[in-house]
Formats: sequence, C-alpha cells, structure tokens
Amino acid sequence: MLSIIPRDRRFFDLFEEASALVVQAAQAYADMLRDYQQRERYVAIIRQVEHDGDEVAHRTLAKLDTTFITPFDREDIYALMKLMDDVIDETDAAAKRLTLYQIAKPTDALIKQTDILLQATKMVAAAIRELRNLKNPAGLRERLIEIHAMENAGDDINHAATAELFSGAFDAIEVIKWKEIYELTERAIDRCEDVANTIEGIILKNL
Amino acid sequence: MLSIIPRDRRFFDLFEEASALVVQAAQAYADMLRDYQQRERYVAIIRQVEHDGDEVAHRTLAKLDTTFITPFDREDIYALMKLMDDVIDETDAAAKRLTLYQIAKPTDALIKQTDILLQATKMVAAAIRELRNLKNPAGLRERLIEIHAMENAGDDINHAATAELFSGAFDAIEVIKWKEIYELTERAIDRCEDVANTIEGIILKNL
Amino acid sequence: MLSIIPRDRRFFDLFEEASALVVQAAQAYADMLRDYQQRERYVAIIRQVEHDGDEVAHRTLAKLDTTFITPFDREDIYALMKLMDDVIDETDAAAKRLTLYQIAKPTDALIKQTDILLQATKMVAAAIRELRNLKNPAGLRERLIEIHAMENAGDDINHAATAELFSGAFDAIEVIKWKEIYELTERAIDRCEDVANTIEGIILKNL
Repeated sequence: MLSIIPRDRRFFDLFEEASALVVQAAQAYADMLRDYQQRERYVAIIRQVEHDGDEVAHRTLAKLDTTFITPFDREDIYALMKLMDDVIDETDAAAKRLTLYQIAKPTDALIKQTDILLQATKMVAAAIRELRNLKNPAGLRERLIEIHAMENAGDDINHAATAELFSGAFDAIEVIKWKEIYELTERAIDRCEDVANTIEGIILKNL
Repeated sequence: MLSIIPRDRRFFDLFEEASALVVQAAQAYADMLRDYQQRERYVAIIRQVEHDGDEVAHRTLAKLDTTFITPFDREDIYALMKLMDDVIDETDAAAKRLTLYQIAKPTDALIKQTDILLQATKMVAAAIRELRNLKNPAGLRERLIEIHAMENAGDDINHAATAELFSGAFDAIEVIKWKEIYELTERAIDRCEDVANTIEGIILKNL
Repeated sequence: MLSIIPRDRRFFDLFEEASALVVQAAQAYADMLRDYQQRERYVAIIRQVEHDGDEVAHRTLAKLDTTFITPFDREDIYALMKLMDDVIDETDAAAKRLTLYQIAKPTDALIKQTDILLQATKMVAAAIRELRNLKNPAGLRERLIEIHAMENAGDDINHAATAELFSGAFDAIEVIKWKEIYELTERAIDRCEDVANTIEGIILKNL
C-alpha cells in the first residue's frame, strides 16, 4: 500500500471513464440522426451522459484534493477533465438544437459530420489510454496526429455544408438554424483537438 | 507570524475593487432594461466602468512587477483580472448591441437573463472576498457551486428565449439581432463561471 | 559568452519565422481585396502560408523535445506558437469565406478592417523581435500597448460595419455572410491581442 511513492494510477482510470463518456455522447448523437423518429430519446441519453461526466469530474477533483503525488501536473489533470466535459457539452448543445429548432430531417452533411466527431472521440479515448505510457510517447503522438487529421476532415465537411446552405435552397431562418448546428458539431470536434494539444503540452513537460 | 515578508494583502483589495466593478456593470445593464428611455446613459455608465476596470488591471500589473511574494501564482492573479475584465467586456458588448441594433423594447427573456447575470456577478464578488481565506476553502467552494448553478439557470433562459425567437413571431433580421444579444449576455455569465473554474484551480494549487 | 549553458537562441529565430508568416497572411488578405479579380490566387497564397506555419510549429516542437534549457517556459513557447498559428487560421477562414459565399465585391469597411489586421500583425512581429531583450522590456511593452490600441481601433471599425449592415441596405442572407466575414477578421485581430497578453505573462514570470 505504502509503496515508495507510486504515482497514483487511479487518475488514469478516471480519465478512461471520462473518455468513454465522450464516445458515448458522440455515439448517441450519430445514432440519433439515423433513428430520427426517436430523437428525444437520444437527447435524453446525451443529457444523462453529461450528468455522468460531471460526476466523474467531481470525483477527480475530490481525488486531487487528497493526493500528494499525481501522474502529471494538477492543472493538466484539471484541464483534460474540463476539455472532455466540453466535448460532451458541445455535443449536447448540437443535439438539443435539432429538437429546439424543430428540424424535420437531418442533412447528409450533418450525418457525415457526426461520423467524424464519433471517430475523433474514439481517437481521444485511444490517446487517453496511451497516457499510461507517457515516457514512451511514440504511440500517443500517432493518436494526436490522427486527431488533428480528423479535425481537418471536419473542416472540409463544414465548408461543403456551408456552401450548400448558401446555394439558395434554404431560406434565411433555415440558414441561421443549420449554420449553428454545423458550428456546434464542429466545435465538439475542435475540443477533441484541444485535448490533443493539452496532451502534447503534457508530453513536453514530462520529457 | 511565520514570515518576515508577509504575502502582500494589497492584491485582495485590488481583486475586490475589480469584482465591485463587475457587479456595477451588470447592475447598469439590468437597470437599463427597466429604464429603457435612458438607455444611452446606462451604456455610458458601463463604458466608464470598463475604463475603471482597465485602470485597476493596470495597477495590479504594476504591483505584480514590484512584489516578490504574491498570495498565489502571478499567472493566476493575471488570469483572474483578465476574466473579470472579460465579464465587463461582454456586458458592455451586449448592452451596446441594443442601441447599435436600434432595439425598440427589451424582451422579457432578456430581462430575466440580465437578472441572472447580476446574481452571478454578486456571487463572483462574494467568492473573491473568500479568497482571503484560501486555506479554509469550504465557504469559497459553496460560492463556486452557486456560480455553476447560476450558469445552468442562464442556459435554461437562453434555451427558452431561443425557442421563442424561432417560433415564427420574428423575421430573420430580428432573429439575427436578438440571437446575438442573448449570446453575448450568456457569454458574460459564462465568464463568471470561468472565474469560478480559475479559483478552483487556485484552491487545488494551494492545498 | 557569459554562461556555460547559453539559453538556446534558436527559438527566437523560429518565433521570427512564424511572425513573418503571420504578416504574410495578413498582407495577402489585404492585397486580395484591392486586386479582387485575382482573389483565388490570394486564397491559395494564404493556404500555403498556413502550411508553412504548421511546419515552423512542428520544428519548434521538435526542438523543444531536444532542448534542456529554453529561453522561457516550454508552455509559453508552445502557447505563442499556437496563437500565431491561430492568427493565420482566422485570416485564412475569413479570406476563404469571401469565395465560399461568392461575394461579388468587398466593402470599404472590410478593406479598413484588413488594414488594421495588417498593422496589428506587423506590431506582433516587432514585439516578437523584442523578446530577445526580455530583461529590458520597456520597448517590448510599448509594442504591446500598440497592439491593444490597434485592437480597439478594430472594434470601432467592426461596430460601424455592423451598423451599416443592419441599416436596411442588406437582405438577411447577406447580413449573415458579412457578419461572419467581419467577425472572423476581428477574431484574427483579437488573436494578435492574445499574443500580446501571453507576452505580458512571459514578462511577469521573467522579472
């Protein structure tokens, strides 16, 4: 129990719990669009995931309070938890907008965009798993590069979706609604990239 | 008691000056909506508060330059001042939009939203006062929880306001204007929550 | 000369490379509006500058990996590179929007706004050059003040442009397009100010 100061491995478990929730939120959002009749059910699932995420974040903070030696800087542990929470929050905001704006049918562009978000969150979860091998960051860095590539793919989709939106086929109110839904979904993807940037910073400090 | 060089208590005075200005800006914004004939006067008050805030921030930076031992990290002092400045900036931006967009009459939803902003800023000021007792953070943490709860209440108001905006009663140009006013006001509330998050980080570093 | 372990001066060269690219992107954006027939060519130039910026950032990270003593904190080196990258990204996003939205002719307000962005980036480059004299920050601080003043000038332009946009001369779809172009350009200017804020933080830590 009282080993010669082991860095507390429980934090990695908490990170993995949080990243699993990030994937669950993105999965529910992608599923929602393919099973759109049941959309209210998926919005409720995402809301539940969001509450679960808050609870994991809370346990992490409590653990930080009682732990002297952490696997890396307390601020970085805090930042990572915050960013994963942000991914879920943006996903939640995007999904809720579809019902709030009474969108009758998702566009193909949004379906593609949520698929990219889902892939990005899976890469975040893979990167989080690699954090246990921080002294050997080659595999971790590959995950980070993949996240950046996914964010670029998301930009391209968003670009095409926006061009379509302004093609004349949508009226101004519809443009306002869809523009925001695309942007919120893109922001969820961007927060995945911010996780990658934060991890890059953690690698630098721990070389 | 223990040290010859006491940690400089003047920083807490500067924080309290800054947080009082945050409350003043939010108060002027809330008052503006109830006394809308005089709206230009309130916009001018908020602009003056913003200048006063810059001046407090400047004095804080000058003090940082000449102080060896600070009550907590220089970066955190800087971050807190910056965020309180941001609350005022967003409040200023929101209030100015009402005149810039020549809004004839504030909505009930905006009145509710500014009341929440005002309450959130008062809780920020209460949390800032508790910073003097950082080694005994129970009361401080209660304030932080209240700020988070207030931000959630703000989200709900914003949600309802947005639903109303897209109900068909507003034309597209009006939707654009009001959407931005609601969003800027919400962002002021969000910056209050960022203050809470920064304080949480300060607590963690000072356990 | 004076020390056994000189702080690695190569980082300053990398910063200056990056800041030169920031100026190039802003210059191409300003030129684009005055030579609007050739707009696709300028968009391609900015895209190339963006790739070059990524390459400089990558070399900086690689150098951080193999350097024990850096001129200032690794995190700040990382943050500065990130923010200069952000200026280029926002410039790129703004310029691309003009072609994506099939804008026939730039407004006078946008021309003024890009001139301010160009000036702000030149001040960022001047500030970056002054980083070599961090122990004597008087000149550097003047640059930072100039950047803040430029950001205020940008706000005023944006304000006037927005008032014009809602004057009744533009339909809702046009308002949506132009509002975003102005905002992205303003955000590029805001990231210049974030560079100034980060440098302010570096000065504080190195007093």
